[in-house]
Amino acid sequence: MMKKARALPVLIGRKPVMEALQQGAAIEKIFLLRSATGPEISAIRQLAKDLQVPVSQVPVEKLNSLTRAQHQGVVAWTSLLEYVDLQSAISHVVEQGQTPLFLLLDGVTDIRNVGAIARTALCCGAHGLILPTSSSASLTEEAIKTSAGALRKILLCRTPSVPQAVDTLRLNGIQVFGTQMQGSIPVYEADLQGPSCIVMGAEDKGISKDVVRRADRLIRIPMAQQFDSLNVSVAAGMILYEAMRQRLIHM
Amino acid sequence: MMKKARALPVLIGRKPVMEALQQGAAIEKIFLLRSATGPEISAIRQLAKDLQVPVSQVPVEKLNSLTRAQHQGVVAWTSLLEYVDLQSAISHVVEQGQTPLFLLLDGVTDIRNVGAIARTALCCGAHGLILPTSSSASLTEEAIKTSAGALRKILLCRTPSVPQAVDTLRLNGIQVFGTQMQGSIPVYEADLQGPSCIVMGAEDKGISKDVVRRADRLIRIPMAQQFDSLNVSVAAGMILYEAMRQRLIHM
Repeated sequence: MMKKARALPVLIGRKPVMEALQQGAAIEKIFLLRSATGPEISAIRQLAKDLQVPVSQVPVEKLNSLTRAQHQGVVAWTSLLEYVDLQSAISHVVEQGQTPLFLLLDGVTDIRNVGAIARTALCCGAHGLILPTSSSASLTEEAIKTSAGALRKILLCRTPSVPQAVDTLRLNGIQVFGTQMQGSIPVYEADLQGPSCIVMGAEDKGISKDVVRRADRLIRIPMAQQFDSLNVSVAAGMILYEAMRQRLIHM
Repeated sequence: MMKKARALPVLIGRKPVMEALQQGAAIEKIFLLRSATGPEISAIRQLAKDLQVPVSQVPVEKLNSLTRAQHQGVVAWTSLLEYVDLQSAISHVVEQGQTPLFLLLDGVTDIRNVGAIARTALCCGAHGLILPTSSSASLTEEAIKTSAGALRKILLCRTPSVPQAVDTLRLNGIQVFGTQMQGSIPVYEADLQGPSCIVMGAEDKGISKDVVRRADRLIRIPMAQQFDSLNVSVAAGMILYEAMRQRLIHM
Protein backbone atom coordinates (compact mmCIF):
# COMPACT_ATOMS: atom_id res chain seq x y z
CA MET A 1 0.00 0.00 0.00
CA MET A 2 1.16 3.51 -0.75
CA LYS A 3 1.91 5.80 2.10
CA LYS A 4 -0.81 8.42 2.22
CA ALA A 5 1.71 11.23 2.57
CA ARG A 6 3.15 10.32 -0.82
CA ALA A 7 -0.09 9.61 -2.54
CA LEU A 8 -1.11 13.19 -3.27
CA PRO A 9 0.86 16.15 -4.60
CA VAL A 10 1.70 18.75 -1.95
CA LEU A 11 1.59 22.53 -1.81
CA ILE A 12 4.04 24.07 0.62
CA GLY A 13 3.95 27.44 2.37
CA ARG A 14 1.43 30.19 3.10
CA LYS A 15 1.37 31.94 -0.27
CA PRO A 16 1.10 28.83 -2.52
CA VAL A 17 -1.73 27.40 -0.42
CA MET A 18 -3.60 30.71 -0.29
CA GLU A 19 -3.24 31.29 -4.01
CA ALA A 20 -4.43 27.78 -4.79
CA LEU A 21 -7.52 28.38 -2.65
CA GLN A 22 -8.17 31.76 -4.27
CA GLN A 23 -7.86 30.25 -7.74
CA GLY A 24 -10.34 27.57 -6.83
CA ALA A 25 -7.83 24.73 -7.20
CA ALA A 26 -9.13 21.46 -5.76
CA ILE A 27 -7.53 20.90 -2.36
CA GLU A 28 -7.93 17.61 -0.55
CA LYS A 29 -6.77 18.74 2.85
CA ILE A 30 -4.82 21.52 4.57
CA PHE A 31 -2.41 20.91 7.44
CA LEU A 32 -1.95 23.97 9.67
CA LEU A 33 0.58 24.32 12.44
CA ARG A 34 -1.45 24.42 15.64
CA SER A 35 0.26 27.57 16.88
CA ALA A 36 0.30 29.42 13.55
CA THR A 37 -1.17 32.94 13.52
CA GLY A 38 -1.17 36.00 11.31
CA PRO A 39 -3.34 37.52 8.58
CA GLU A 40 -2.39 34.92 5.95
CA ILE A 41 -3.26 32.08 8.30
CA SER A 42 -6.61 33.69 9.11
CA ALA A 43 -7.30 34.17 5.41
CA ILE A 44 -6.47 30.52 4.69
CA ARG A 45 -8.76 29.39 7.49
CA GLN A 46 -11.63 31.50 6.18
CA LEU A 47 -11.18 30.45 2.56
CA ALA A 48 -10.95 26.78 3.54
CA LYS A 49 -14.15 27.11 5.51
CA ASP A 50 -15.96 28.81 2.62
CA LEU A 51 -14.73 26.21 0.17
CA GLN A 52 -15.40 23.28 2.53
CA VAL A 53 -11.81 22.13 2.47
CA PRO A 54 -10.86 20.04 5.52
CA VAL A 55 -8.28 21.66 7.81
CA SER A 56 -6.21 19.62 10.21
CA GLN A 57 -4.43 21.36 13.11
CA VAL A 58 -1.15 19.56 13.63
CA PRO A 59 2.09 19.78 15.60
CA VAL A 60 5.26 20.81 13.78
CA GLU A 61 6.47 17.20 13.59
CA LYS A 62 3.56 16.30 11.31
CA LEU A 63 4.40 19.15 8.93
CA ASN A 64 8.05 18.18 8.95
CA SER A 65 7.06 14.63 8.04
CA LEU A 66 5.09 15.90 5.04
CA THR A 67 7.90 17.99 3.58
CA ARG A 68 11.51 18.90 4.13
CA ALA A 69 11.02 22.35 2.59
CA GLN A 70 10.29 25.57 4.54
CA HIS A 71 6.56 25.15 5.16
CA GLN A 72 5.83 28.28 7.24
CA GLY A 73 3.27 26.24 9.17
CA VAL A 74 1.16 25.33 6.11
CA VAL A 75 1.11 22.28 3.87
CA ALA A 76 -1.76 21.16 1.66
CA TRP A 77 -2.56 18.11 -0.44
CA THR A 78 -3.90 18.80 -3.89
CA SER A 79 -6.96 16.76 -4.85
CA LEU A 80 -6.94 14.21 -7.62
CA LEU A 81 -10.68 14.73 -7.87
CA GLU A 82 -13.08 17.59 -8.23
CA TYR A 83 -15.58 18.38 -5.54
CA VAL A 84 -18.92 20.05 -6.15
CA ASP A 85 -21.02 22.04 -3.72
CA LEU A 86 -24.03 19.93 -2.62
CA GLN A 87 -26.64 22.51 -3.63
CA SER A 88 -25.04 22.84 -7.08
CA ALA A 89 -24.94 19.07 -7.44
CA ILE A 90 -28.65 18.75 -6.62
CA SER A 91 -29.56 21.59 -8.99
CA HIS A 92 -27.48 20.03 -11.73
CA VAL A 93 -29.29 16.68 -11.46
CA VAL A 94 -32.71 18.29 -11.36
CA GLU A 95 -31.91 20.53 -14.33
CA GLN A 96 -31.07 17.40 -16.31
CA GLY A 97 -34.60 16.22 -15.68
CA GLN A 98 -33.46 13.35 -13.47
CA THR A 99 -34.77 12.15 -10.13
CA PRO A 100 -31.91 12.61 -7.68
CA LEU A 101 -30.34 9.58 -6.05
CA PHE A 102 -27.58 10.47 -3.63
CA LEU A 103 -25.52 8.49 -1.17
CA LEU A 104 -24.18 10.03 2.03
CA LEU A 105 -21.34 8.18 3.75
CA ASP A 106 -21.64 9.04 7.42
CA GLY A 107 -18.41 7.79 8.96
CA VAL A 108 -17.23 5.32 6.31
CA THR A 109 -13.52 6.03 6.49
CA ASP A 110 -11.88 3.04 4.76
CA ILE A 111 -10.98 4.43 1.36
CA ARG A 112 -11.36 1.04 -0.28
CA ASN A 113 -14.96 0.91 0.91
CA VAL A 114 -15.50 4.47 -0.35
CA GLY A 115 -14.04 3.46 -3.73
CA ALA A 116 -16.08 0.24 -3.95
CA ILE A 117 -19.28 2.10 -3.05
CA ALA A 118 -18.63 4.76 -5.69
CA ARG A 119 -18.25 2.03 -8.32
CA THR A 120 -21.54 0.39 -7.34
CA ALA A 121 -23.32 3.74 -7.04
CA LEU A 122 -22.40 4.74 -10.58
CA CYS A 123 -23.54 1.36 -11.98
CA CYS A 124 -26.87 1.71 -10.18
CA GLY A 125 -27.55 5.19 -11.52
CA ALA A 126 -26.78 7.22 -8.40
CA HIS A 127 -25.80 10.78 -9.20
CA GLY A 128 -23.74 11.88 -6.26
CA LEU A 129 -21.68 10.80 -3.31
CA ILE A 130 -21.56 13.02 -0.21
CA LEU A 131 -18.59 12.76 2.14
CA PRO A 132 -18.17 14.61 5.44
CA THR A 133 -14.96 16.64 5.60
CA SER A 134 -14.48 15.67 9.23
CA SER A 135 -13.96 11.95 8.67
CA SER A 136 -11.96 13.04 5.64
CA ALA A 137 -10.61 9.81 4.24
CA SER A 138 -8.31 11.35 1.67
CA LEU A 139 -9.18 10.11 -1.79
CA THR A 140 -5.86 8.86 -3.06
CA GLU A 141 -4.99 6.99 -6.27
CA GLU A 142 -5.78 3.79 -4.38
CA ALA A 143 -9.36 4.92 -3.72
CA ILE A 144 -9.77 5.89 -7.37
CA LYS A 145 -8.39 2.54 -8.49
CA THR A 146 -10.74 0.64 -6.17
CA SER A 147 -13.61 2.61 -7.66
CA ALA A 148 -12.55 1.56 -11.19
CA GLY A 149 -12.54 5.27 -11.99
CA ALA A 150 -16.10 5.88 -10.75
CA LEU A 151 -14.89 8.55 -8.32
CA ARG A 152 -13.95 10.61 -11.37
CA LYS A 153 -17.41 10.25 -12.93
CA ILE A 154 -19.85 10.63 -10.07
CA LEU A 155 -20.69 14.01 -8.50
CA LEU A 156 -18.55 14.28 -5.37
CA CYS A 157 -19.70 16.58 -2.58
CA ARG A 158 -17.95 17.40 0.67
CA THR A 159 -19.86 18.62 3.66
CA PRO A 160 -18.42 20.13 6.83
CA SER A 161 -21.53 18.96 8.69
CA VAL A 162 -23.65 15.88 8.09
CA PRO A 163 -26.78 17.40 9.75
CA GLN A 164 -26.40 20.43 7.50
CA ALA A 165 -26.18 18.20 4.42
CA VAL A 166 -29.31 16.34 5.53
CA ASP A 167 -31.10 19.70 5.92
CA THR A 168 -29.98 20.83 2.45
CA LEU A 169 -31.20 17.57 0.93
CA ARG A 170 -34.59 17.81 2.65
CA LEU A 171 -35.01 21.48 1.70
CA ASN A 172 -34.62 20.33 -1.90
CA GLY A 173 -37.37 17.77 -1.52
CA ILE A 174 -35.02 14.82 -1.31
CA GLN A 175 -36.10 12.10 1.12
CA VAL A 176 -33.34 11.02 3.44
CA PHE A 177 -33.17 7.31 4.29
CA GLY A 178 -30.93 6.39 7.20
CA THR A 179 -29.74 2.78 7.14
CA GLN A 180 -29.69 0.96 10.46
CA MET A 181 -29.72 -2.68 11.51
CA GLN A 182 -32.76 -1.84 13.66
CA GLY A 183 -34.38 0.45 11.06
CA SER A 184 -38.17 0.18 11.14
CA ILE A 185 -38.76 -0.34 7.40
CA PRO A 186 -37.34 -3.21 5.35
CA VAL A 187 -35.60 -1.55 2.42
CA TYR A 188 -37.92 -3.18 -0.15
CA GLU A 189 -40.90 -1.51 1.53
CA ALA A 190 -39.33 1.94 1.32
CA ASP A 191 -40.26 3.98 -1.73
CA LEU A 192 -36.94 4.88 -3.34
CA GLN A 193 -38.42 6.04 -6.63
CA GLY A 194 -38.69 9.67 -5.63
CA PRO A 195 -35.77 12.01 -5.01
CA SER A 196 -33.77 10.05 -2.43
CA CYS A 197 -30.58 10.08 -0.44
CA ILE A 198 -29.41 6.92 1.28
CA VAL A 199 -27.19 7.32 4.33
CA MET A 200 -24.75 4.53 5.17
CA GLY A 201 -22.83 4.52 8.45
CA ALA A 202 -19.66 2.86 9.61
CA GLU A 203 -19.83 -0.92 10.06
CA ASP A 204 -19.24 -0.70 13.79
CA LYS A 205 -21.03 2.46 14.87
CA GLY A 206 -23.72 2.83 12.21
CA ILE A 207 -25.16 6.21 11.27
CA SER A 208 -24.78 9.11 13.69
CA LYS A 209 -27.51 10.22 16.09
CA ASP A 210 -27.93 13.42 14.13
CA VAL A 211 -28.93 11.42 11.07
CA VAL A 212 -31.21 9.13 13.07
CA ARG A 213 -33.00 12.24 14.34
CA ARG A 214 -33.25 14.03 11.01
CA ALA A 215 -33.85 11.21 8.52
CA ASP A 216 -37.29 10.91 6.91
CA ARG A 217 -37.18 7.15 7.20
CA LEU A 218 -34.96 4.59 8.92
CA ILE A 219 -34.54 1.52 6.76
CA ARG A 220 -32.92 -1.84 7.32
CA ILE A 221 -31.72 -4.72 5.22
CA PRO A 222 -33.59 -7.70 6.59
CA MET A 223 -31.49 -10.68 7.62
CA ALA A 224 -32.67 -14.16 6.76
CA GLN A 225 -30.30 -15.47 9.39
CA GLN A 226 -29.00 -13.56 12.37
CA PHE A 227 -25.30 -13.53 11.84
CA ASP A 228 -22.95 -10.63 12.20
CA SER A 229 -23.54 -7.63 9.95
CA LEU A 230 -22.99 -7.17 6.24
CA ASN A 231 -19.90 -5.50 4.88
CA VAL A 232 -20.78 -1.84 4.27
CA SER A 233 -20.03 -1.92 0.57
CA VAL A 234 -22.16 -5.04 0.11
CA ALA A 235 -24.97 -3.43 2.14
CA ALA A 236 -24.75 -0.26 0.04
CA GLY A 237 -24.88 -2.45 -3.07
CA MET A 238 -28.11 -4.10 -1.92
CA ILE A 239 -29.85 -0.79 -1.22
CA LEU A 240 -28.64 0.78 -4.46
CA TYR A 241 -29.83 -2.32 -6.31
CA GLU A 242 -33.23 -1.97 -4.63
CA ALA A 243 -33.46 1.69 -5.68
CA MET A 244 -32.48 0.77 -9.24
CA ARG A 245 -34.99 -2.11 -9.31
CA GLN A 246 -37.84 0.13 -8.18
CA ARG A 247 -36.91 2.79 -10.69
CA LEU A 248 -36.53 0.33 -13.58
CA ILE A 249 -39.77 -1.57 -13.06
CA HIS A 250 -41.72 1.67 -12.92
CA MET A 251 -40.11 3.27 -15.92
CA MET B 1 -0.59 -10.97 4.53
CA MET B 2 0.28 -14.50 5.59
CA LYS B 3 2.16 -16.70 3.19
CA LYS B 4 -0.20 -19.35 1.98
CA ALA B 5 2.32 -22.11 2.63
CA ARG B 6 2.30 -21.23 6.31
CA ALA B 7 -1.40 -20.65 6.61
CA LEU B 8 -2.45 -24.28 6.84
CA PRO B 9 -1.02 -27.20 8.84
CA VAL B 10 0.88 -29.72 6.71
CA LEU B 11 0.99 -33.50 6.55
CA ILE B 12 4.24 -34.92 5.25
CA GLY B 13 4.96 -38.25 3.59
CA ARG B 14 3.01 -41.08 1.96
CA LYS B 15 1.76 -42.86 5.05
CA PRO B 16 0.53 -39.83 7.02
CA VAL B 17 -1.34 -38.47 3.99
CA MET B 18 -2.89 -41.83 3.14
CA GLU B 19 -3.96 -42.45 6.72
CA ALA B 20 -5.50 -39.02 6.97
CA LEU B 21 -7.51 -39.69 3.81
CA GLN B 22 -8.59 -43.11 5.07
CA GLN B 23 -9.71 -41.66 8.40
CA GLY B 24 -11.74 -39.04 6.58
CA ALA B 25 -9.70 -36.11 7.89
CA ALA B 26 -10.46 -32.87 6.06
CA ILE B 27 -7.70 -32.22 3.56
CA GLU B 28 -7.51 -28.91 1.71
CA LYS B 29 -5.07 -29.95 -0.99
CA ILE B 30 -2.50 -32.64 -1.82
CA PHE B 31 0.80 -31.89 -3.55
CA LEU B 32 2.20 -34.91 -5.43
CA LEU B 33 5.61 -35.11 -6.99
CA ARG B 34 4.98 -35.23 -10.74
CA SER B 35 7.16 -38.30 -11.21
CA ALA B 36 5.99 -40.21 -8.13
CA THR B 37 4.76 -43.78 -8.66
CA GLY B 38 4.04 -46.89 -6.62
CA PRO B 39 1.06 -48.53 -4.94
CA GLU B 40 0.79 -45.91 -2.14
CA ILE B 41 0.80 -43.07 -4.64
CA SER B 42 -1.92 -44.80 -6.68
CA ALA B 43 -3.96 -45.35 -3.53
CA ILE B 44 -3.61 -41.69 -2.53
CA ARG B 45 -4.71 -40.60 -6.00
CA GLN B 46 -7.76 -42.84 -5.91
CA LEU B 47 -8.78 -41.83 -2.38
CA ALA B 48 -8.33 -38.16 -3.22
CA LYS B 49 -10.53 -38.57 -6.28
CA ASP B 50 -13.22 -40.37 -4.32
CA LEU B 51 -13.15 -37.76 -1.58
CA GLN B 52 -12.97 -34.82 -4.00
CA VAL B 53 -9.73 -33.55 -2.57
CA PRO B 54 -7.76 -31.37 -5.02
CA VAL B 55 -4.44 -32.86 -6.13
CA SER B 56 -1.70 -30.70 -7.56
CA GLN B 57 1.13 -32.34 -9.56
CA VAL B 58 4.28 -30.42 -8.77
CA PRO B 59 8.04 -30.48 -9.34
CA VAL B 60 10.30 -31.43 -6.43
CA GLU B 61 11.19 -27.77 -5.79
CA LYS B 62 7.60 -27.03 -4.81
CA LEU B 63 7.56 -29.87 -2.29
CA ASN B 64 10.91 -28.77 -0.89
CA SER B 65 9.50 -25.28 -0.46
CA LEU B 66 6.59 -26.67 1.57
CA THR B 67 8.69 -28.68 4.00
CA ARG B 68 12.27 -29.43 4.90
CA ALA B 69 11.37 -32.93 6.10
CA GLN B 70 11.58 -36.12 4.04
CA HIS B 71 8.37 -35.85 2.03
CA GLN B 72 8.59 -38.96 -0.18
CA GLY B 73 6.90 -36.99 -2.94
CA VAL B 74 3.75 -36.19 -0.94
CA VAL B 75 2.72 -33.17 1.11
CA ALA B 76 -0.84 -32.20 2.04
CA TRP B 77 -2.50 -29.21 3.67
CA THR B 78 -5.04 -30.00 6.33
CA SER B 79 -8.31 -28.09 6.03
CA LEU B 80 -9.46 -25.58 8.59
CA LEU B 81 -12.99 -26.22 7.38
CA GLU B 82 -15.24 -29.18 6.80
CA TYR B 83 -16.47 -30.05 3.35
CA VAL B 84 -19.71 -31.82 2.64
CA ASP B 85 -20.64 -33.86 -0.41
CA LEU B 86 -23.08 -31.84 -2.60
CA GLN B 87 -25.77 -34.53 -2.65
CA SER B 88 -25.63 -34.85 1.14
CA ALA B 89 -25.82 -31.07 1.49
CA ILE B 90 -28.93 -30.86 -0.70
CA SER B 91 -30.58 -33.76 1.13
CA HIS B 92 -29.77 -32.16 4.47
CA VAL B 93 -31.46 -28.86 3.49
CA VAL B 94 -34.52 -30.58 2.09
CA GLU B 95 -34.84 -32.84 5.15
CA GLN B 96 -34.95 -29.71 7.30
CA GLY B 97 -38.01 -28.62 5.32
CA GLN B 98 -36.20 -25.70 3.73
CA THR B 99 -36.17 -24.52 0.13
CA PRO B 100 -32.56 -24.85 -1.02
CA LEU B 101 -30.60 -21.75 -1.93
CA PHE B 102 -27.08 -22.52 -3.09
CA LEU B 103 -24.31 -20.45 -4.57
CA LEU B 104 -21.78 -21.91 -6.99
CA LEU B 105 -18.56 -19.95 -7.49
CA ASP B 106 -17.39 -20.79 -11.00
CA GLY B 107 -13.87 -19.40 -11.17
CA VAL B 108 -13.90 -16.93 -8.29
CA THR B 109 -10.38 -17.50 -7.01
CA ASP B 110 -9.65 -14.47 -4.81
CA ILE B 111 -10.08 -15.86 -1.31
CA ARG B 112 -11.19 -12.49 0.03
CA ASN B 113 -14.04 -12.48 -2.46
CA VAL B 114 -14.89 -16.07 -1.47
CA GLY B 115 -14.90 -15.03 2.20
CA ALA B 116 -16.98 -11.90 1.60
CA ILE B 117 -19.52 -13.85 -0.47
CA ALA B 118 -19.84 -16.52 2.24
CA ARG B 119 -20.59 -13.79 4.79
CA THR B 120 -23.31 -12.27 2.61
CA ALA B 121 -24.73 -15.66 1.65
CA LEU B 122 -25.20 -16.66 5.27
CA CYS B 123 -26.92 -13.34 6.11
CA CYS B 124 -29.28 -13.81 3.16
CA GLY B 125 -30.29 -17.31 4.16
CA ALA B 126 -28.31 -19.28 1.59
CA HIS B 127 -27.59 -22.82 2.73
CA GLY B 128 -24.51 -23.82 0.82
CA LEU B 129 -21.50 -22.65 -1.11
CA ILE B 130 -20.12 -24.82 -3.91
CA LEU B 131 -16.48 -24.43 -4.92
CA PRO B 132 -14.76 -26.24 -7.79
CA THR B 133 -11.65 -28.15 -6.70
CA SER B 134 -9.84 -27.12 -9.87
CA SER B 135 -9.73 -23.38 -9.17
CA SER B 136 -9.01 -24.44 -5.59
CA ALA B 137 -8.43 -21.18 -3.80
CA SER B 138 -7.24 -22.67 -0.53
CA LEU B 139 -9.42 -21.49 2.33
CA THR B 140 -6.88 -20.14 4.78
CA GLU B 141 -7.38 -18.26 8.05
CA GLU B 142 -7.51 -15.08 5.98
CA ALA B 143 -10.52 -16.33 4.00
CA ILE B 144 -12.28 -17.36 7.21
CA LYS B 145 -11.55 -13.97 8.77
CA THR B 146 -12.89 -12.11 5.71
CA SER B 147 -16.05 -14.21 5.98
CA ALA B 148 -16.47 -13.15 9.63
CA GLY B 149 -16.66 -16.87 10.39
CA ALA B 150 -19.42 -17.59 7.88
CA LEU B 151 -17.27 -20.20 6.13
CA ARG B 152 -17.51 -22.27 9.31
CA LYS B 153 -21.31 -22.03 9.41
CA ILE B 154 -22.46 -22.46 5.83
CA LEU B 155 -22.48 -25.86 4.08
CA LEU B 156 -19.30 -26.03 2.02
CA CYS B 157 -19.19 -28.34 -0.99
CA ARG B 158 -16.28 -29.06 -3.30
CA THR B 159 -16.85 -30.33 -6.78
CA PRO B 160 -14.24 -31.76 -9.15
CA SER B 161 -16.43 -30.70 -12.07
CA VAL B 162 -18.73 -27.69 -12.35
CA PRO B 163 -20.93 -29.30 -15.07
CA GLN B 164 -21.33 -32.35 -12.85
CA ALA B 165 -22.39 -30.14 -9.94
CA VAL B 166 -24.93 -28.40 -12.17
CA ASP B 167 -26.31 -31.78 -13.21
CA THR B 168 -26.56 -32.91 -9.58
CA LEU B 169 -28.40 -29.72 -8.66
CA ARG B 170 -30.86 -30.05 -11.54
CA LEU B 171 -31.48 -33.73 -10.82
CA ASN B 172 -32.54 -32.61 -7.35
CA GLY B 173 -35.04 -30.15 -8.79
CA ILE B 174 -32.88 -27.12 -8.09
CA GLN B 175 -33.05 -24.42 -10.76
CA VAL B 176 -29.64 -23.23 -11.84
CA PHE B 177 -29.30 -19.50 -12.57
CA GLY B 178 -26.14 -18.49 -14.40
CA THR B 179 -25.19 -14.84 -13.92
CA GLN B 180 -23.92 -12.99 -16.98
CA MET B 181 -23.69 -9.34 -17.97
CA GLN B 182 -25.60 -10.28 -21.13
CA GLY B 183 -28.03 -12.65 -19.34
CA SER B 184 -31.49 -12.50 -20.88
CA ILE B 185 -33.50 -12.04 -17.67
CA PRO B 186 -33.10 -9.13 -15.24
CA VAL B 187 -32.58 -10.76 -11.86
CA TYR B 188 -35.76 -9.22 -10.40
CA GLU B 189 -37.80 -11.00 -13.09
CA ALA B 190 -36.31 -14.38 -12.26
CA ASP B 191 -38.27 -16.47 -9.79
CA LEU B 192 -35.81 -17.26 -7.02
CA GLN B 193 -38.41 -18.50 -4.55
CA GLY B 194 -38.13 -22.13 -5.57
CA PRO B 195 -35.13 -24.36 -4.98
CA SER B 196 -32.34 -22.31 -6.59
CA CYS B 197 -28.64 -22.21 -7.19
CA ILE B 198 -26.99 -19.00 -8.35
CA VAL B 199 -23.75 -19.29 -10.30
CA MET B 200 -21.29 -16.41 -10.16
CA GLY B 201 -18.26 -16.30 -12.44
CA ALA B 202 -14.94 -14.53 -12.28
CA GLU B 203 -15.06 -10.76 -12.80
CA ASP B 204 -13.06 -10.95 -16.01
CA LYS B 205 -14.18 -14.16 -17.68
CA GLY B 206 -17.68 -14.63 -16.27
CA ILE B 207 -19.24 -18.06 -15.92
CA SER B 208 -17.87 -20.93 -18.00
CA LYS B 209 -19.42 -22.10 -21.28
CA ASP B 210 -20.45 -25.32 -19.59
CA VAL B 211 -22.61 -23.40 -17.17
CA VAL B 212 -24.03 -21.17 -19.90
CA ARG B 213 -25.10 -24.33 -21.75
CA ARG B 214 -26.51 -26.16 -18.75
CA ALA B 215 -28.14 -23.39 -16.72
CA ASP B 216 -31.92 -23.24 -16.55
CA ARG B 217 -31.88 -19.45 -16.81
CA LEU B 218 -29.26 -16.81 -17.55
CA ILE B 219 -29.81 -13.75 -15.43
CA ARG B 220 -28.22 -10.32 -15.36
CA ILE B 221 -28.03 -7.43 -12.96
CA PRO B 222 -29.31 -4.50 -14.97
CA MET B 223 -27.09 -1.44 -15.13
CA ALA B 224 -28.62 1.99 -14.81
CA GLN B 225 -25.48 3.38 -16.34
CA GLN B 226 -23.06 1.54 -18.59
CA PHE B 227 -19.86 1.63 -16.65
CA ASP B 228 -17.44 -1.19 -16.04
CA SER B 229 -18.76 -4.19 -14.16
CA LEU B 230 -19.67 -4.66 -10.54
CA ASN B 231 -17.29 -6.22 -8.07
CA VAL B 232 -18.19 -9.93 -7.82
CA SER B 233 -18.94 -9.86 -4.11
CA VAL B 234 -21.20 -6.81 -4.53
CA ALA B 235 -22.95 -8.50 -7.49
CA ALA B 236 -23.43 -11.69 -5.45
CA GLY B 237 -24.84 -9.50 -2.66
CA MET B 238 -27.43 -7.97 -4.96
CA ILE B 239 -28.64 -11.34 -6.26
CA LEU B 240 -28.72 -12.89 -2.80
CA TYR B 241 -30.64 -9.84 -1.58
CA GLU B 242 -33.13 -10.30 -4.44
CA ALA B 243 -33.60 -13.97 -3.54
CA MET B 244 -34.12 -13.04 0.11
CA ARG B 245 -36.55 -10.25 -0.81
CA GLN B 246 -38.66 -12.57 -2.93
CA ARG B 247 -38.68 -15.24 -0.24
CA LEU B 248 -39.53 -12.78 2.55
CA ILE B 249 -42.40 -11.01 0.80
CA HIS B 250 -44.04 -14.32 -0.07
CA MET B 251 -43.64 -15.90 3.32
